Amino acid sequence: MAKRKITVVGGGLAGSLMAVYFAKRGFDVEVYERRPDMRRADIGAGKSINLALSVRGILALEKVGLKEAILENAIAMNGRMMHSENGDLSYQPYGKEGQYINSVSRGGLNVHLLELADENPNVKLFFNHRCLDVDLEKSIATFKDENGEKVTVESDYIIGGDGAFSAVRMRMMKSARLDYSQDYLDHGYKELTIPPTADGKFAMEPNALHIWPRGSYMMIALPNPDKTFTCTLFFPYSGENSFETITTPEQVMDFFNTHFPDAVPMMPTLIEDFFGNPTGSLVTVRCFPWVANKAVLLGDACHAVVPFYGQGMNCAFEDCVVMDECIEKHGDDLDAAFREYEILRKPNADAIADLALQNFIEMRDLVGDPAFLKQKEVEHDLCERYPDLFKSQYELVTFTNEPYAFAQQRGASNTQFVQQLVSEGLTNQLGDRSFIENRLRKHRGEATT
Amino acid sequence: MAKRKITVVGGGLAGSLMAVYFAKRGFDVEVYERRPDMRRADIGAGKSINLALSVRGILALEKVGLKEAILENAIAMNGRMMHSENGDLSYQPYGKEGQYINSVSRGGLNVHLLELADENPNVKLFFNHRCLDVDLEKSIATFKDENGEKVTVESDYIIGGDGAFSAVRMRMMKSARLDYSQDYLDHGYKELTIPPTADGKFAMEPNALHIWPRGSYMMIALPNPDKTFTCTLFFPYSGENSFETITTPEQVMDFFNTHFPDAVPMMPTLIEDFFGNPTGSLVTVRCFPWVANKAVLLGDACHAVVPFYGQGMNCAFEDCVVMDECIEKHGDDLDAAFREYEILRKPNADAIADLALQNFIEMRDLVGDPAFLKQKEVEHDLCERYPDLFKSQYELVTFTNEPYAFAQQRGASNTQFVQQLVSEGLTNQLGDRSFIENRLRKHRGEATT
Repeated sequence: MAKRKITVVGGGLAGSLMAVYFAKRGFDVEVYERRPDMRRADIGAGKSINLALSVRGILALEKVGLKEAILENAIAMNGRMMHSENGDLSYQPYGKEGQYINSVSRGGLNVHLLELADENPNVKLFFNHRCLDVDLEKSIATFKDENGEKVTVESDYIIGGDGAFSAVRMRMMKSARLDYSQDYLDHGYKELTIPPTADGKFAMEPNALHIWPRGSYMMIALPNPDKTFTCTLFFPYSGENSFETITTPEQVMDFFNTHFPDAVPMMPTLIEDFFGNPTGSLVTVRCFPWVANKAVLLGDACHAVVPFYGQGMNCAFEDCVVMDECIEKHGDDLDAAFREYEILRKPNADAIADLALQNFIEMRDLVGDPAFLKQKEVEHDLCERYPDLFKSQYELVTFTNEPYAFAQQRGASNTQFVQQLVSEGLTNQLGDRSFIENRLRKHRGEATT
Repeated sequence: MAKRKITVVGGGLAGSLMAVYFAKRGFDVEVYERRPDMRRADIGAGKSINLALSVRGILALEKVGLKEAILENAIAMNGRMMHSENGDLSYQPYGKEGQYINSVSRGGLNVHLLELADENPNVKLFFNHRCLDVDLEKSIATFKDENGEKVTVESDYIIGGDGAFSAVRMRMMKSARLDYSQDYLDHGYKELTIPPTADGKFAMEPNALHIWPRGSYMMIALPNPDKTFTCTLFFPYSGENSFETITTPEQVMDFFNTHFPDAVPMMPTLIEDFFGNPTGSLVTVRCFPWVANKAVLLGDACHAVVPFYGQGMNCAFEDCVVMDECIEKHGDDLDAAFREYEILRKPNADAIADLALQNFIEMRDLVGDPAFLKQKEVEHDLCERYPDLFKSQYELVTFTNEPYAFAQQRGASNTQFVQQLVSEGLTNQLGDRSFIENRLRKHRGEATT
């Protein structure tokens, strides 16, 4: 059988990684990207500047030999550093010793992936090609190139890795009886910068994800290799404190001085950033099916999630791993491979979408709540003492490859277990392994020993 | 203040009626329709051939003086005629004496509305103009005309009356943080024909909506003025009996002979119809907001519903009435008028979407169930005896102008009330007004007399 040709729409993170996976299996791959070549032009990679890479994403990179190169330029974040309104700091580790998430540059990672794809003689990359439409029946994709010319591409399969506003999905929405939803948060986001100190150092602890939880809104900051931090303010579009009401430099300064007083001295470009940077929106996209005729969706194109669990990229990369495993399993029968892929991934994409929405509440609100902090402490203690018995939801999502749907279910059950221990005043017995083991089995409905 | 210009995208039922309402208020109106002029070309009007016009739609037509002209060509349907597999007929009236729904031709109604719009010197109609995009900020709509030329139209407001696949909404989905969902049924539909008898008469009782309820699928038939019936088979896309499995003329004949034996002799063109007519899909569209800058959605563009309550057109026409009332109330402040319109209409659009989905179950399944028929009989009895006290959900939806959301709520409560009377064996007391009145008040949580 002649090797088949795959058209990948979108050369962002998911599209370029999947192109590499296809190339390694010997397919002829063409990648069409709307933006210019990031390797040559100094352009924004779109969306956020940095991202938190964790176990699922790392595994996907490892399988294509890119793990070391990426982690070399990453900054480990071992936990959350919470900033209160009066500037007090409190710290929560994300997991056990050695468990951390990695702040990586979206642009840098994307360039690495494009370079790796380009090393394969069976991969062709096309930039400045905006997808206009796809013909699902005939497997033809149409693009507009940089000269405004129409380019028509025929192939055996079309992979839609073209993001939350996917043109491939748009066609499926019109022609393929696609169930679809998009739901926006009432919050938008604004990126702001904390530069290095005068003597060229990080202005805050670099090995942490910083959070300023303020109930109805919050700011976070992730470290970059150039010793800056990229802050993101998640802020309501309207209401008392909102993008609608905070509209002058004076109002911005007042607002920040009142609510983020410890950050203000570190943000010399606050006003320029606030008024110069765009306000981004936050959307959750769900749809099904992900496969229509010879077109298959991947990443944000079929499951854009809000960023509060740091899993958007990790989930998209896991899509690539699962798609590749399905191709491995079904061999030449790509139709069967893609059908299995969508069945395997859909429940997990739904789970991480839910978890990401829940985590927004946790991050902006609960991380400032003593009862919640106590519970997290007990949870952390259990994870440390009984790694074989107990994993928190965060650990399952971030530091394992267990399916997201399992992490959601087991995580909720484990949280409930911890809440019971706390409410029954049993936290003095955390050291008693057989007590914990029996309670846990009972809680999970398993046979007790 | 200079009279403002309104661009209406879509010259279907909702768009052309709304154009008339705007014209009557003195606005300059331009209507852009994708298809050719139905008044001149003999083309399908798209979607179903006939529709059930009821009180809400009639009111909207009455306000523009079109009620009589439309009802003149309508056929009254006083109730449901159920056809069992062995050909037995049973009949349920839709409401009280004089309450009926009206089978009207979609094409005929649309032509009437276009003619009425065209009578206004301040309305201009453009056909063969497909909307490509709208600029929400600048209130500019772009169309492609019949020569493939781009036409750019500036106006003060853009009304998106362009149906379930609305181009105006598509732009709002991309640019205006629109919450959106589309959900397809697992069933599609196929239109089939029952011609007049050899001696030129209706082949069945004309003053009824005929139903062949078969559990997982059903067929219905509505009468037309030319003494034909248009049948619609609602049929699963896949599974045991489905479009996927019934694919040859022999299979179609076998299937119809087994499940619709009384219909087969009346359907001489069954095979041609089945294989010649397209399979339509059934989608529910929900979104919010309906207003973005100077663009406003109307009808199917913001709330496409499945056809099982016969309310899609009636709901769209009610949109026009409410929009017109809001304009009346807010005078020159059209922004305020449209904001109030969306707030008033959204809960009612959601309610009729839910009710239409529920009614599919009722029509294809429950209308063949004796317990359900008993309950309907008691309900009908209560409606007849106590029109001041008791209205069924069907009556509230179809024969009143009460908001759909109220009809949904009160209808569910009334159904529960009837179920209780039946299950407590109290149906022998239906004639006792004070008994019924007290039970009803108690049931509704009102003070009893």
